[in-house]
Order: sequence, then structure tokens, then C-alpha cells
Amino acid sequence: MAEPLRIALAGLGTVGAGVIRLLAANAALVRARAGREIRVVAVSARDRTRDRGVDLGPFDWCDDMTAMAARPDIDAVVEMVGGADGPALTLAKAAIREGKALVTANKAMIARHGLELAEAAEAANGGRGVALKFEATVAGGIPVIKGLREGAAANAIVRVQGILNGTCNFILTAMEESGRDFAEVLAEAQARGFAEADPSFDIEGIDAGHKLAILAAIAFGARLDFAHVSCVGIAAVRAADIARARDLGFVIRLVGAADVEQGADGAPRLLQRVRPCLVPRAHPLAHVDGATNAVVAEGNFSGRLLFQGAGAGDGPTASAVVADLIDIARSAGKGGEAGPAFSVPVGQLVAMAPAEPGDRRERSYIRMTVADRPGVLAEITAAMRDAEVSIESLIQQGQPDVAGDVLVAMVTHEGPERCVEEALRLLDGSPSLTAPPLVMPILEA
Amino acid sequence: MAEPLRIALAGLGTVGAGVIRLLAANAALVRARAGREIRVVAVSARDRTRDRGVDLGPFDWCDDMTAMAARPDIDAVVEMVGGADGPALTLAKAAIREGKALVTANKAMIARHGLELAEAAEAANGGRGVALKFEATVAGGIPVIKGLREGAAANAIVRVQGILNGTCNFILTAMEESGRDFAEVLAEAQARGFAEADPSFDIEGIDAGHKLAILAAIAFGARLDFAHVSCVGIAAVRAADIARARDLGFVIRLVGAADVEQGADGAPRLLQRVRPCLVPRAHPLAHVDGATNAVVAEGNFSGRLLFQGAGAGDGPTASAVVADLIDIARSAGKGGEAGPAFSVPVGQLVAMAPAEPGDRRERSYIRMTVADRPGVLAEITAAMRDAEVSIESLIQQGQPDVAGDVLVAMVTHEGPERCVEEALRLLDGSPSLTAPPLVMPILEA
Repeated sequence: MAEPLRIALAGLGTVGAGVIRLLAANAALVRARAGREIRVVAVSARDRTRDRGVDLGPFDWCDDMTAMAARPDIDAVVEMVGGADGPALTLAKAAIREGKALVTANKAMIARHGLELAEAAEAANGGRGVALKFEATVAGGIPVIKGLREGAAANAIVRVQGILNGTCNFILTAMEESGRDFAEVLAEAQARGFAEADPSFDIEGIDAGHKLAILAAIAFGARLDFAHVSCVGIAAVRAADIARARDLGFVIRLVGAADVEQGADGAPRLLQRVRPCLVPRAHPLAHVDGATNAVVAEGNFSGRLLFQGAGAGDGPTASAVVADLIDIARSAGKGGEAGPAFSVPVGQLVAMAPAEPGDRRERSYIRMTVADRPGVLAEITAAMRDAEVSIESLIQQGQPDVAGDVLVAMVTHEGPERCVEEALRLLDGSPSLTAPPLVMPILEA
Repeated sequence: MAEPLRIALAGLGTVGAGVIRLLAANAALVRARAGREIRVVAVSARDRTRDRGVDLGPFDWCDDMTAMAARPDIDAVVEMVGGADGPALTLAKAAIREGKALVTANKAMIARHGLELAEAAEAANGGRGVALKFEATVAGGIPVIKGLREGAAANAIVRVQGILNGTCNFILTAMEESGRDFAEVLAEAQARGFAEADPSFDIEGIDAGHKLAILAAIAFGARLDFAHVSCVGIAAVRAADIARARDLGFVIRLVGAADVEQGADGAPRLLQRVRPCLVPRAHPLAHVDGATNAVVAEGNFSGRLLFQGAGAGDGPTASAVVADLIDIARSAGKGGEAGPAFSVPVGQLVAMAPAEPGDRRERSYIRMTVADRPGVLAEITAAMRDAEVSIESLIQQGQPDVAGDVLVAMVTHEGPERCVEEALRLLDGSPSLTAPPLVMPILEA
């Protein structure tokens, strides 16, 4: 059997400890499948004394993780430090520069610096390259990066849609099941450890945006462009919206969606958006409940592929990290990992300007909180008419909702998004509206 | 850019023509992702004159496909001839012997001869090996073999469950939607091209069994053993069963399931079964409708992973075949494909005796067609009592079903399978039963 793949782990939080636990628990099968042992040689973290529930005795402890990456007895570095910049990025660059394979679970870092790291990885080892792998950055234990980069590699991908944040999906599902409103469910999720103390990164859609940007680059061969991911979170979704959606045959999910359109100049333009959406029950994402993640990729030959599973947690994340290490072990003895990090070399990724979605045609759900007085409905419907928004159905609740507001909910016929924007512009500042309206697109089945 | 990967296609049915169409339509992106051109050099099929809707002009036509496999200007052979033995197997062996990579969509051949072919592939090229890849054999365009072999490679797989035959799922879904009985729906499916003129291979579960055997070998590191896959088809399922299951909160699906148990002697034993099952709505397979396929794999770290998509058709199958070719192109210049066909070398696969399921505990749905006379229920319930089957609910229809039979349907409490078998043995030959009973397991959510 070949020499062991010798690895260094940086960062020993729950995921780092999970990787150590997995490599111990599944040692025999990992060795059999990798074709050689995957051996942890050195570890590094901030606090040497903390009890992590795993025995660190067999490993060299390194206080300086960047120096650890340079050790000649290390083949691959696993970065689980976290943070888009700072020590994680310094370590990642150092590891690649030293010609070590790099595996990371750090979605913020890959979303912001993935191209730079991938270029460095291509140039490393005097141009022979090193592996840069990051399966764990998107959708936890679900092999969706491999699914797009390799499994669906023969396809032009038409569209990617995903439920990419387990916290948001947990909250929306709990609202659905209990009929309670957002703030109450969030507080419970925090108490039970399903949401961070500062949940803004999750609930504002930023975390899902990081993952969407990574998927979009691979799916469409586009230069990674997190800066132009438009993110709308779930804080404005109310229990009444979920109830109304259910009556209409939909569930509400935070969906990251990306596709490519041709601009007027013939150049491709990339649309990347994270938004709460109405998902029809016949859509595969409608049955994704709780903290589960899922990605739908539509290939021009494969049709619609669904990848679903646990989107977070130490076990699933460790599963993805070690799968990357097994890939490296399987191929590294043969001259390096098969193919570039983003499926094609960075130099071949196409810089795509962001699409302007106004011309897109879709059905929308529009919900307004209104003053309970005569003429409000006339004002709203006049604005819709003036903006050429065609209303399919409109419901004004007789009673205020659990938050004490009177709600008007509309479903539009399919039409250009800009018409809805225009209608909202016409109503902007109107005393009839007591809060900003909520617009959610309705996905096609 | 590297030299082209030069391929020969044998078999030009709908899938073979689909591969040619895909390589033409997606030529630029396949070249970018593979790192080099995938070039069809030679083709072979029975009938040179047939119009296949693709231009064969650019390719060398070979009458002798085994000779084609030996051509020095060929790097990889794509076998789409079909049939477990005969010309397909002869071709596959010849290609491997000549040191060519082999890609095949032939599930019957891999299910029956996969180990022999994988051993030959490991020994080829003077021991350096050649790639043997067969993503298209299981679940069409869904990259589930890659998902298990690579994506979930870090996990001990606890269980695999799949909807692996699109024809059966189409029929069961159509029965569900229309309330019609099996024979009528099958006839319509045949008329519309969703079922073969001789559908026995599909509806008796053999096709699903082939796929299950391939998945089980990869998931559990077991020697492929199609001979011990127990297959029960869907012909006995009635519209009344589907209606009853729905009332209880289930759908009926043909599920292939495999797991490994420890025998009394401590040796692992492999259970592989294809059976119509009652699937609770909370189970991911409950929402797989029409001709869609899906596989659930439960890893000990990843948790439950779901892979879903189109299980058949020329587009999805071509997508899988060309994904295999891209994998080969990406790595072949670097000394060969990464890792063995069944995830570990054939010599390391464990020969597992078939498990004896009698001790398994499960809930069952039992449906009997009975004579409409006094004492029948007493006889049935006495047999259940004597066999120690505990009945959770029992429904006797007041009216005969659409086929004119009086039905008694029971759901048992969880108990050993052998008790249900014993109850049926006690009732065997009883004049109270007008047809053999149907037993379906109830899957856990």
C-alpha cells in the first residue's frame, strides 16, 4: 500500500474535532477506499488546554499554524479556522504556496477569495498544481460540489436553486408547523442551539449567498462574484404569509437561485439571488423541512437533479472534508487531483456582469400591512393597474394577524418584475401602508 | 491543451445517439471541463443504414466492434450494446484487455459480470490498470454511483434505499392519481412508450435488483451478488391497496433496499431486497413521482443523503456516460482514473452471505382477498394470533373492490418478519382466501 497521506488540521472547533473522530471511527474503510492511510500528523488551534472530546495526544501540537503548513512531513492542510480573511486566509495561502493540498470548510473565505486561492493552487508546485477542495463549504455533507463539478459535468446547467441555510429552513418550517411568528420561533431556535446568538448572517441570507456564489461559479463557468449576490432574508415573513401560501398550495422557503441570461450585447449575465419564495408542492424543494439543505440543478441533458441532506453539523461537515481528503489520496500518488477547483481553470472562467432582473417574468406574492380605513384597497389596486401588474387573486383579512396588523395579500399573474417594483414605488410613502410591503416570487413547479 | 481523448462507441440505439448528440451540443464546455477534447473516432452498430437522427459521417464505421476496441487510435470504449452476456461482454473484455478505458450503461452486464470486469481492469496495462466506469447503469442521469463511491466515501453506509425503476414508479404514481388498477395503467403506459412490450423485467423488480446489487457492492464494500437479490414486483398491488395506504398516511413505491447485519457467527451478511413498500409521507422517497428515480444513502457521519432525478431516457443516460468520460479525460493524462471501480479493489471486497431476514422486526401491511362468507375474519385473526402477529388495525371493505374481490387489509405492530410468514403459512390453502395474500413492509420515516 502507498505511503500515508499526512495531514495537518488547523482549527479544532466542533468540525475539526469531528474530522478527528471520523478518521478514528472509520479508519479501516477510509484506508481501503483512499488506497492508503489518511494520517493526522499535526494540529493547531488557539487554545491547547480546551477539552474537545477527542484525544490529541498522537498529534504534534503547533502553536504557529502557518509554520505547520510549511512542514515537510505534511502533504495536505485542512483549514477549519473560519473567517473570510485573517488567519484562515493567511494559512490557506501559505499552504498552497508550500505546495500542500488544501481542504477547507470555510464558505466565507471561498466565496470571497476562492478565485485567488484557485489561481495560486494552479500555479503551485512549479505549475503542476495542488488540489484545492471545499465540498464542505456548501450544504454540509451533501456532495453537491462534486455533483456539479463532476456528476453533471457533461451538461450546460440551465439553473441552480437551493435551500442553503439550515437555520432559516428550520425557522420557516417551525413557523409553518406551529403558526407562530418569526421572532418567537427565532428565540426558541437560539435557545435550542439551532440559531446563533447573532443570527443576522443566517437570517439575512448572507450565508446562503456565499454558498450560492460558489455553486454558480462551478455550474456556469463564471468568475466567482459574491459581491453581486442579491440577498433578502426571512425576517419579514409572517405566520400569516405562511398560512396564506399554504391555502394557495405553496410553502415558503429561502431559496438561492442562479442562472445566466444573454444581455442585449450578447454577453452572458449572471443572476444570483437569495430570496424567500413560494414553492409549489410539486417542486422538489417543497419537501425540504427542518435544518435539511437541498440543491436542484437543471442540466440540458440530465434534466433536474436533486441533492438533499444535512446541511450542517460536525458529522456531515466532517464527512465532506474527509471525502475531499480521500479524493486527494486516491489521485495524489498519480500526479495530482483531477481537474481544477472550479471545474475549469480560473483563466477560463467567464467574467459575467450581473443580470438586471427587471425584464424577468414571474408570478409574485405581494403582502402589505395596511391601515384599516376606507379607500386603502382602491389605492393599492389603482397602483397595480397603473404599473400594469395583473392581479390573479387578492385577499384582505377580516381580522388583524397575530402581530395586530391588517394584511392584504395578492398573487399576480406572470409579468415583468419591474412592473411590481413600479407599483411599490407608486405606493411608497403612502399613509395606507403601515410597513414596507413583502414581495416573494412564486417558483414554477 | 492535452491530446484528445479518443473514443469508440459501440451500440447506436437511443442512448448511443444521445451521447453523440450531447458531445456535439455541449462540445465547448465538455472540452473546457475535461481539459481536452473528447473525440468520437469510431462507431459500431448492427445496422449501418438506419437513420438515428445524428450525423455519423465524421466517424469511422466498424463492422467488427471487438476489432474496433483494439484500434491503437482509441483510448476509451463506450459500450451501449446491451445484454448481460454475448457481444456486449465480449466487447467489454476485449476493450479492457487492450488497455482501453471502458464506460458502459449496461446494468445487467455489470450486475452479473462487474467483478470479473473490475478485476480485469485492475490487471490491465501490465497492472497499472484502466478505468471501468458505469455511472449510467444506476438511476440514469443521477450521479449516485459517484455520490456513494466518492461523495460519501468517508462514511460507513448504514443503509441504501432506492426507487430504481422508472416504469414501476410511473405505473404506481398513475394508479395513485387515477384510482385505476395495475393492468389498465400498464396497458396505457405501454401504449405511451413508458413501458416495454414485454414489461416483466421492469415490473418483476429484476431491473431494480440489478441496480441495487451494484449500489450495495459500492456502499458496503461487498462482493457484488445479484444472485441473492430478492425481487418482488408490483403486479399484485391493487388500486384498493393504494387507497388504503393513503388513508393511513403512506404511498406505495417499489423500493430496493440493502443493508448489512452481523450474523450469529460474527460475519457480515448482506440483505438485498426489492419490494413494494408503504412509504410514510415524511420519508424522502414518498415524494418521488412518475418516472423519477431516487436513492437514499445513510452514512454514519453524513446522515441521510438523497439523490434524485430522471432515471432513464437518452438525455440523462448520455449525461452520465459523458460524465464518466470527463472523469477519465481529467485523470488519464495523469496516470489513470482515481481509484477502483467498486471503490476498493476487487480483492478487498468482502464476500457476504445473504442475510436471513426472518429475525428483522418491521411493521407490515397485509392484504387478503377473501370469500364473502361468515367465519373468514375469525379464521384470519386466529392465524395471526397463533403466529404471534400483533394487529394494529384491520379493515374489511364492505364492498368488493374494482376487481370484484372482497379485501381484508391489516397493519401489524412491529414484529419479526417470520411471524407474518408463519401466519401466511397457516392460512395457505384455506378456502377463505381467493388469491395469494400481498405483504408489504412499512418503511420507517
